[in-house]
Amino acid sequence: MAGNSIGERFVVTSFGESHGKCVGVVIDGCPAGLPLSEADIQPILDLRRPGQSLVTTQRKEEDRVEILSGVFNGFTTGAPIAMVVWNKDVDSKSYERLLDTPRPGHADYFARVKYGGFYDWRGGGRFSGRITAGFVMAGAVALKLLRLTLGVEVMAYVKRIGQVEAGEVPLDAIRSLRYSNDVRCPDERVAERMRQAVMEARKAGDSLGSLVECIALNVPVGLGEPVFSSLDSDLSRALFSVPAVKGVEFGLGFGLVGLKGSESNDPLVSMNGRVAPITNKAGGITGGLSTGREILVRVAFKPPSSIALPQRTLNLRTMKEEEVVVTGRHDPVLGPRAVPVVESVVAMVLADHAMRSGVIPPVLRTGKEVASGVSQ
Amino acid sequence: MAGNSIGERFVVTSFGESHGKCVGVVIDGCPAGLPLSEADIQPILDLRRPGQSLVTTQRKEEDRVEILSGVFNGFTTGAPIAMVVWNKDVDSKSYERLLDTPRPGHADYFARVKYGGFYDWRGGGRFSGRITAGFVMAGAVALKLLRLTLGVEVMAYVKRIGQVEAGEVPLDAIRSLRYSNDVRCPDERVAERMRQAVMEARKAGDSLGSLVECIALNVPVGLGEPVFSSLDSDLSRALFSVPAVKGVEFGLGFGLVGLKGSESNDPLVSMNGRVAPITNKAGGITGGLSTGREILVRVAFKPPSSIALPQRTLNLRTMKEEEVVVTGRHDPVLGPRAVPVVESVVAMVLADHAMRSGVIPPVLRTGKEVASGVSQ
Amino acid sequence: MAGNSIGERFVVTSFGESHGKCVGVVIDGCPAGLPLSEADIQPILDLRRPGQSLVTTQRKEEDRVEILSGVFNGFTTGAPIAMVVWNKDVDSKSYERLLDTPRPGHADYFARVKYGGFYDWRGGGRFSGRITAGFVMAGAVALKLLRLTLGVEVMAYVKRIGQVEAGEVPLDAIRSLRYSNDVRCPDERVAERMRQAVMEARKAGDSLGSLVECIALNVPVGLGEPVFSSLDSDLSRALFSVPAVKGVEFGLGFGLVGLKGSESNDPLVSMNGRVAPITNKAGGITGGLSTGREILVRVAFKPPSSIALPQRTLNLRTMKEEEVVVTGRHDPVLGPRAVPVVESVVAMVLADHAMRSGVIPPVLRTGKEVASGVSQ
Amino acid sequence: MAGNSIGERFVVTSFGESHGKCVGVVIDGCPAGLPLSEADIQPILDLRRPGQSLVTTQRKEEDRVEILSGVFNGFTTGAPIAMVVWNKDVDSKSYERLLDTPRPGHADYFARVKYGGFYDWRGGGRFSGRITAGFVMAGAVALKLLRLTLGVEVMAYVKRIGQVEAGEVPLDAIRSLRYSNDVRCPDERVAERMRQAVMEARKAGDSLGSLVECIALNVPVGLGEPVFSSLDSDLSRALFSVPAVKGVEFGLGFGLVGLKGSESNDPLVSMNGRVAPITNKAGGITGGLSTGREILVRVAFKPPSSIALPQRTLNLRTMKEEEVVVTGRHDPVLGPRAVPVVESVVAMVLADHAMRSGVIPPVLRTGKEVASGVSQ
Repeated sequence: MAGNSIGERFVVTSFGESHGKCVGVVIDGCPAGLPLSEADIQPILDLRRPGQSLVTTQRKEEDRVEILSGVFNGFTTGAPIAMVVWNKDVDSKSYERLLDTPRPGHADYFARVKYGGFYDWRGGGRFSGRITAGFVMAGAVALKLLRLTLGVEVMAYVKRIGQVEAGEVPLDAIRSLRYSNDVRCPDERVAERMRQAVMEARKAGDSLGSLVECIALNVPVGLGEPVFSSLDSDLSRALFSVPAVKGVEFGLGFGLVGLKGSESNDPLVSMNGRVAPITNKAGGITGGLSTGREILVRVAFKPPSSIALPQRTLNLRTMKEEEVVVTGRHDPVLGPRAVPVVESVVAMVLADHAMRSGVIPPVLRTGKEVASGVSQ
Repeated sequence: MAGNSIGERFVVTSFGESHGKCVGVVIDGCPAGLPLSEADIQPILDLRRPGQSLVTTQRKEEDRVEILSGVFNGFTTGAPIAMVVWNKDVDSKSYERLLDTPRPGHADYFARVKYGGFYDWRGGGRFSGRITAGFVMAGAVALKLLRLTLGVEVMAYVKRIGQVEAGEVPLDAIRSLRYSNDVRCPDERVAERMRQAVMEARKAGDSLGSLVECIALNVPVGLGEPVFSSLDSDLSRALFSVPAVKGVEFGLGFGLVGLKGSESNDPLVSMNGRVAPITNKAGGITGGLSTGREILVRVAFKPPSSIALPQRTLNLRTMKEEEVVVTGRHDPVLGPRAVPVVESVVAMVLADHAMRSGVIPPVLRTGKEVASGVSQ
Repeated sequence: MAGNSIGERFVVTSFGESHGKCVGVVIDGCPAGLPLSEADIQPILDLRRPGQSLVTTQRKEEDRVEILSGVFNGFTTGAPIAMVVWNKDVDSKSYERLLDTPRPGHADYFARVKYGGFYDWRGGGRFSGRITAGFVMAGAVALKLLRLTLGVEVMAYVKRIGQVEAGEVPLDAIRSLRYSNDVRCPDERVAERMRQAVMEARKAGDSLGSLVECIALNVPVGLGEPVFSSLDSDLSRALFSVPAVKGVEFGLGFGLVGLKGSESNDPLVSMNGRVAPITNKAGGITGGLSTGREILVRVAFKPPSSIALPQRTLNLRTMKEEEVVVTGRHDPVLGPRAVPVVESVVAMVLADHAMRSGVIPPVLRTGKEVASGVSQ
Repeated sequence: MAGNSIGERFVVTSFGESHGKCVGVVIDGCPAGLPLSEADIQPILDLRRPGQSLVTTQRKEEDRVEILSGVFNGFTTGAPIAMVVWNKDVDSKSYERLLDTPRPGHADYFARVKYGGFYDWRGGGRFSGRITAGFVMAGAVALKLLRLTLGVEVMAYVKRIGQVEAGEVPLDAIRSLRYSNDVRCPDERVAERMRQAVMEARKAGDSLGSLVECIALNVPVGLGEPVFSSLDSDLSRALFSVPAVKGVEFGLGFGLVGLKGSESNDPLVSMNGRVAPITNKAGGITGGLSTGREILVRVAFKPPSSIALPQRTLNLRTMKEEEVVVTGRHDPVLGPRAVPVVESVVAMVLADHAMRSGVIPPVLRTGKEVASGVSQ
């Protein structure tokens, strides 16, 4: 057990349940001297908040972050930063009914076996997507840390929902428009078609798969600790920790299977005095190290397992097959709400590796140190 | 950085500050199926609560534990258990005054250097003994886990305060009387002399050193993972994490320096069909492994650094020597309040090693599993 | 730094370089009592040995495993198992020439930046595929451990090379035929077409991408430690540690993006008294936990970066573009030699998680314990 | 299990057995750019080599270090550094005889229980002091790293053997004379008395306890990661990993129990413009952080358990008490050979913490980088 922490320098520990008191996170190792308050975290948390549109679940959660420790006089202190959002709109009734008839596609039954029946089944418990509120709180800190120290920018967006896929989107559009609509696709025309597809699926009591693409700019050369903490290793580990992720690829990814070496290598050139690959088929990572080009990773989300359509399952009491109808409030597609989650998770890993490589120091001494009342 | 977690299977992460919102802890890896509620934790927390007697600080804290996650229907679920006590009686004024004149014996100046001035200096921040409230919350869980699964009993008591030392105390007295008085010494006559010594020191504006002895019974043979996670290695690591600990010894400890091999070896015998060392000069650990005899460890606490007497220090602003008088509310001796802390810390390590050795499984399947409403 | 270990209970540490003295591995935490000798490891190592066919590099290495520690009287002892293969057929000349002209697609330049020029560039050093000889040594131990304790079987094969893809292959064919030809595809007719494609690419001085599919049978329900050590998280981390991997997907993986929830959920049924998903679109992992169905993971390998065709690069000395021709002995496609590597890496992770879940104990007490000469 | 690694940045993994093929170590995370060869390690290894005098065991081992990886062109590369000494003078006969009659004071029986009888009992296997040859190899690298980057000096010496104790020894004498005699006590007159005590004990078939004191100079302020990786926590953990250590104390240690706060605090002063404690009763560590004063730690070694005198034990086959006489070649006292081991272990921890604090970077870029043939 004990798999609820990630990172070696910027260590994130997740806790909390979907229908428990709260969802929370502890960051251990965040550099001292980072200006930080709830105001840095809330906006990103708001981006994944449920109940905001018809393409997301109707559960209404305020999701107001509370920092419990590790910040003093407006700066991080180097001590562990604990943060929570308190659960409010909890309705566990619909789940109790499902105890004997595990929902297809969910961890219900497997968790029951693993934890000897003691797991918290309300709302999916630890297996709920709600856990990612903790990822976002940690990610918001990582994002600010990366931005202030290295100018790193992490941007994800919905590339595809079901059969609707966005073409190439200019970087500027991604930067400015990815959160401009509820499906989180910066191409508004494609977004509209995605929205329609979601509405149709919803109406049919069904759900849709989705693809999120994430880009990280200004990542310095050489992040990653091969062999087992190569940058892609650690990014993929973190991304597969997000519920419902079933595939991760970097750069051309699976598309490289059909290419030749002469087509897939990224030759080095000198660009404005900086050495860098002129193409980026590798997605910014070669040999497990960042190349200086943008990190480019694509993440496949399966369709949400909770659908209104009747489904076949087993009644564990009678050991007979039965139909189950999953009521409750659920997302008809995961990509849109996952966008800030993917950004957060990528940022957590980059922050950890920037610290491991020494490019982000354990104390940001250049900060306004007098702010803490200390003359040094 | 990132040193706020300990353990590999029963992983404890500490957070919170002396004068922040709370002191807390997350346990990751606690077996599912342990019956647990606040009522299991509060009594042990109460034993270290401040403000209970003249031998402790007058800070009044209710120290009421709140479990935030990881428990459902009265049992642990296998998910991380987050717990907090909320700080209430906080008075940081006396500390602000001390910013330029670091208190002798405290981490003030060294923390200021390490964290670039960003550390939380109120009440010692992360360096306060108050952090050990978190150790006790985690320890209470470990103690219950060890007791229910293995019948392990962990008992500490104050062996010495200043020049007053208790002789051999029978095990039964330790078990039943160690918490019967405010100095936590099971020999009431010695306890009375200790109390007087503390009162005298207190009146003189001074403080006293102390020695805590801890015994763990029924520890199975073979706990410990040599070489670097030998049982004594990990116990000592945890014990030196308790503020003000300056020495740790097992069995005869430093006394073994003056002995011969023929005097210090513990011969094996058969006792009631069980093979065990007939003497226990090794303190229950040989070769880094538990021997089946009681673990016996002694912990030296320095006198509290905060004393009312004027002391010499440096004014960091003027760089001139100055006198400093540490006001505020402080313990005149640490041993008495450290007794439940030492028990907790020892229990945390034993629980971790019992899980690493496989003698405590990741799920307590023998528990009342139906309690969670699941028919399996 | 310090990224050369993976696992929490079955901990694998990799060391060695392509053209150094050896490639090696230490396993810490392997259960005591596993019958083990070089004869268990050599056959699997032989399967990845170079120089065996025209579809692999012509470097000739005997790759004879030597166990340095942790095995006694034919059984593992519970102590760390160190193993090495000694490098013999080393020819570093062709690499020296390339120092100023980093090979496109390789880590050369990025490693140079990261390690301040101190990295071992001979044969790719730590970035060489040769490092995977260590993975295979560790994997061979994991495979035996899994087989003897749980009956787990791990089988990978080449699913696709370039444009040539195998259709559905029956499990029995995978089991018995995957190593029957040099491209490691159990469908001999497809294998022949793959071989031709490789030969053509080779003749053209080029290389091909490839796809390896891996199946693990008899994995017990409930392996995986969500959220950050979910089974897919840790498998993907390990797989991306294999050089040249650019994508990992479980079950239908990226194919799930285009499906609906009603199409992608795996309903539970009772099969021979065992509860299991009737379909396996999830690839044997749901909610980060194994479902009892076969683990199914697909791994995309980019075309080898070393190709004979002239390529564009930068001369770091002159900072002018140049042509580079990578001579030396290289694989024209990676999948075939990667098959035992993928099996090994998957086995390492499964062994680790089986130990974490307690389904493999730290000591295999049922073994022939008298073999060590001890009467117990 | 899996307790054979220590450190987070400078990670040391130990392997090998007393009578196996070798004793070895892997360092993962050592900065790139450290000039290193066997010649840096051999001299320190020679200082713990057995067979050098009558106060040590007569086992003759050449103990020649071989670096297997991680060094290239005379510099560390940032890759794992594997090192071994090959065992040569192995004589396991005397141990076989002892299988049924566990030696008092040794781990024999407890290891047998723990590892289900599979442990390697020859010469104590993993529980032998010979394992510390690995500690010394790693320590030699740490010592060089600390010296070159920070000017840190680590010096241990034998403070006491049995009843013979050295008084205060001037720092210069410790520096220059601690290895000048076979008992490793810089005061030659005391050393002579120690030697006599050892000879007497040896003649009597007995052994003696000993005390080693270790001093580390020039340790920067602020090393240590409270709460659970405080500097004293991690030093004590590492020191208790050395076989036969039973007590560890910092500064006045257990002596602080009898002192008052007014006597034990170390006031800060300004010394040559540097702020530092004027006294060092804390042993250079306060609040878990280094204070800038010398680290001072004392380590109690029990008398070696292997003595020639007949001892009582249990015959595990007959379950009857028996006399056992431990033949073989053993140290009559441990302190003298432990001196370089204590220095090594302290250096390993300091190197790790210097890297964690960022005062030693992951690459020593100031080194002669062209040495690797790379023009950058």
